[in-house]
Amino acid sequence: MAESVKVGLLGLGTVGTGVASIITRHQKELQHQVGCPVEIKKVLVRDKQKLRENSFEDTLLTEDPYEVINDEDIDVIVEVIGGVEQTKEWLLRALLNHKHVVTANKDLMAIHGAELLKAAVENDCDLYYEASVAGGIPILRSLSDGLSADRITKIMGIVNGTTNYILTKMSTKGSSYDEVLKQAQELGFAESDPTADVEGLDAARKMAILATLGFSSPISLDDVSVQGISTISDVDLKYADRLGYTVKLIGIADRTKGKIDVSVRPTLLPNEHPLSSVHNEYNAVYIHGEAVGETMFYGPGAGSLPTATAVVSDLVTVMKNMRLGVNGKSVLAPMNEKLLKSSEEINSQYFIRLKVPDRTGTFSAITSLFAEYDVSFEKLLQLPVEGEELAEIIVVTHKTSKQTFEGLLERLKNVEVVESVESSYCVEGGN
Amino acid sequence: MAESVKVGLLGLGTVGTGVASIITRHQKELQHQVGCPVEIKKVLVRDKQKLRENSFEDTLLTEDPYEVINDEDIDVIVEVIGGVEQTKEWLLRALLNHKHVVTANKDLMAIHGAELLKAAVENDCDLYYEASVAGGIPILRSLSDGLSADRITKIMGIVNGTTNYILTKMSTKGSSYDEVLKQAQELGFAESDPTADVEGLDAARKMAILATLGFSSPISLDDVSVQGISTISDVDLKYADRLGYTVKLIGIADRTKGKIDVSVRPTLLPNEHPLSSVHNEYNAVYIHGEAVGETMFYGPGAGSLPTATAVVSDLVTVMKNMRLGVNGKSVLAPMNEKLLKSSEEINSQYFIRLKVPDRTGTFSAITSLFAEYDVSFEKLLQLPVEGEELAEIIVVTHKTSKQTFEGLLERLKNVEVVESVESSYCVEGGN
Repeated sequence: MAESVKVGLLGLGTVGTGVASIITRHQKELQHQVGCPVEIKKVLVRDKQKLRENSFEDTLLTEDPYEVINDEDIDVIVEVIGGVEQTKEWLLRALLNHKHVVTANKDLMAIHGAELLKAAVENDCDLYYEASVAGGIPILRSLSDGLSADRITKIMGIVNGTTNYILTKMSTKGSSYDEVLKQAQELGFAESDPTADVEGLDAARKMAILATLGFSSPISLDDVSVQGISTISDVDLKYADRLGYTVKLIGIADRTKGKIDVSVRPTLLPNEHPLSSVHNEYNAVYIHGEAVGETMFYGPGAGSLPTATAVVSDLVTVMKNMRLGVNGKSVLAPMNEKLLKSSEEINSQYFIRLKVPDRTGTFSAITSLFAEYDVSFEKLLQLPVEGEELAEIIVVTHKTSKQTFEGLLERLKNVEVVESVESSYCVEGGN
Repeated sequence: MAESVKVGLLGLGTVGTGVASIITRHQKELQHQVGCPVEIKKVLVRDKQKLRENSFEDTLLTEDPYEVINDEDIDVIVEVIGGVEQTKEWLLRALLNHKHVVTANKDLMAIHGAELLKAAVENDCDLYYEASVAGGIPILRSLSDGLSADRITKIMGIVNGTTNYILTKMSTKGSSYDEVLKQAQELGFAESDPTADVEGLDAARKMAILATLGFSSPISLDDVSVQGISTISDVDLKYADRLGYTVKLIGIADRTKGKIDVSVRPTLLPNEHPLSSVHNEYNAVYIHGEAVGETMFYGPGAGSLPTATAVVSDLVTVMKNMRLGVNGKSVLAPMNEKLLKSSEEINSQYFIRLKVPDRTGTFSAITSLFAEYDVSFEKLLQLPVEGEELAEIIVVTHKTSKQTFEGLLERLKNVEVVESVESSYCVEGGN
């Protein structure tokens, strides 16, 4: 049997602990696949003195990153410590030192992915990052290998577990956003500072990674338009339900005639859409390809062991490549230049909820405003607001351009006949 | 740019036509990935004179398989012609001629997979067969790469589109099996001889392939216990629905303490199980891994273009391997010997429907029979049968061994107090 492959682990939090645990528990299976033992040689931790359940010898732990990334014996760096700028420097150094890299860091890959991948190719090194998107779902591999023959036209995903947990509980229990967020924090499904999750930033990072790979086009985080869930009210969810929709935070990357749009936003999905039955902290990615049609991948989006599975599966790929001597050959530069859709080219149905004075003529004034913008109704509800001299109007429009809808929305906010625009969301068409 | 990769296509039916179409339409994307053009050099057809929509020149078509598999210029054989024994000989010859093979042939792989894979390794050739299981779903790759770090404990799949279509229509329309089968045949969702599909053989072949790969153990078709759907009555579906279940033809490969059981049979799934919302001709495979937990892959199981996507994605992998010079290195011999569960070790809940005389004492006699076998009830319904002096008893048992249940079933068929055992099925536990 060949000499062991030596791994340097950056980070020993929940995912790092999971990685160490899988490498120990599945050693026999790993050896069968890669033909030699796998061994963790050094582990970077923030505090060596912290009490840990892992049985690592003290001598393996270090607080100095360069003890790991400059160690000549180490073949592969597994980065599960998080952080962006400093971590980027460490990984660039590791690649210059001809160490392969496996990372679970979506923030890093969404921001500096192109630079890191370039450095990997230049140094004949592998850089894999399956765990950065939808932990337990092998979605990046499916895009780059399993569907490699197809031309992907749309990627829709529930790629943030925290927000999906919150929206699921708001829908099923009828509770308010604030109540559910508090419970989610107590249960560990939301961070104490939940901003990156609830404002859609985390999902946007993942969508940038998915769109780059799926469309072979360099999509960066700045190209993703983002709206979070923190302003969603339980009233919206109730009306959506009444109209046959489920509200989810959906990332959509869409390509039409070579032009791309990527967004993350609360979206009304028809109840029969496969993504609308993805509940709680689960993730799912729905892909439409010209040839394959619809496929969907479902699984845990986070968690110590699911994410660690993706990390160690990447590690297996690196080790197989080492055995074959083909590291650094799997990265493809994007083949297409980036062409983004303008807001005239982005089309969607929209849900809008208005409060209006409950008096004669209001309804007709509103409908003529919609007509002026050539936006027609697919569904319409008008209901009195209890205890106020107001009515609520809920409209689901037919498809219209983003530009037109934004013009209409601005107008509705400023006309006298509308008391307030309570909310507006995109509505996704059926299958 | 390097010289083109030359493909010999065996078969030009629906899938073969799809393969040719994708190679033409996605040539630019394929070239980007493999660094050179891809070209179909020869096509084996059964009848050269048949009118075709494809624009192949006559000189490309041949009725002689050896013109393709002995052609020195051809690098890869794509087999989409079907058949078992003769096709095996052709592919063995192709491998001996050092041609890589991509096949969509589940019958062949389930029966002669081990022999063909061995021949591939011996000749430094690739042999890929993603399209043989659940066409549009890259499930074999996900098992061998994406989840390579994990230890798979269970694979459950809806892997036959015809039977899922039939059961879906029976459930939603309340029609009988015969009616729906006839419609399915008219719509092209079922073959004129539907035996292999409806009797579960097609699904069994796919489960043998999945279990071999997922458990790294040589499971053959003979190891799979099979029950089809042709005897299912709409009455069973109605009772199942009433008790909160959906009936699906489910392939289950299950591993407990190193021992394996693989079966295909009509199964009652709780309505909240992810597989119970997989409708019509769609396929889905649900995987449970020790580390990753639950994941599910959903997509079209057949059809010209989805299946062709899987074939061409395999072709891309072969061509990438050619560029890297690593063909024939990806096949792993199974690491585990085959240990199958005995019928004492296979546990399940069961659904059973009995007709009994509608008179005092019957119910008590039946319950004491169940008690004698130590099989307890989770759910129970007793209903009069209209127009007859009979009652129906429907039981969902708690978990019991297959051995015990079969003993009980035999007994129920022969005691005087039971008029007839109408049906019995396995019931799958919740998530």
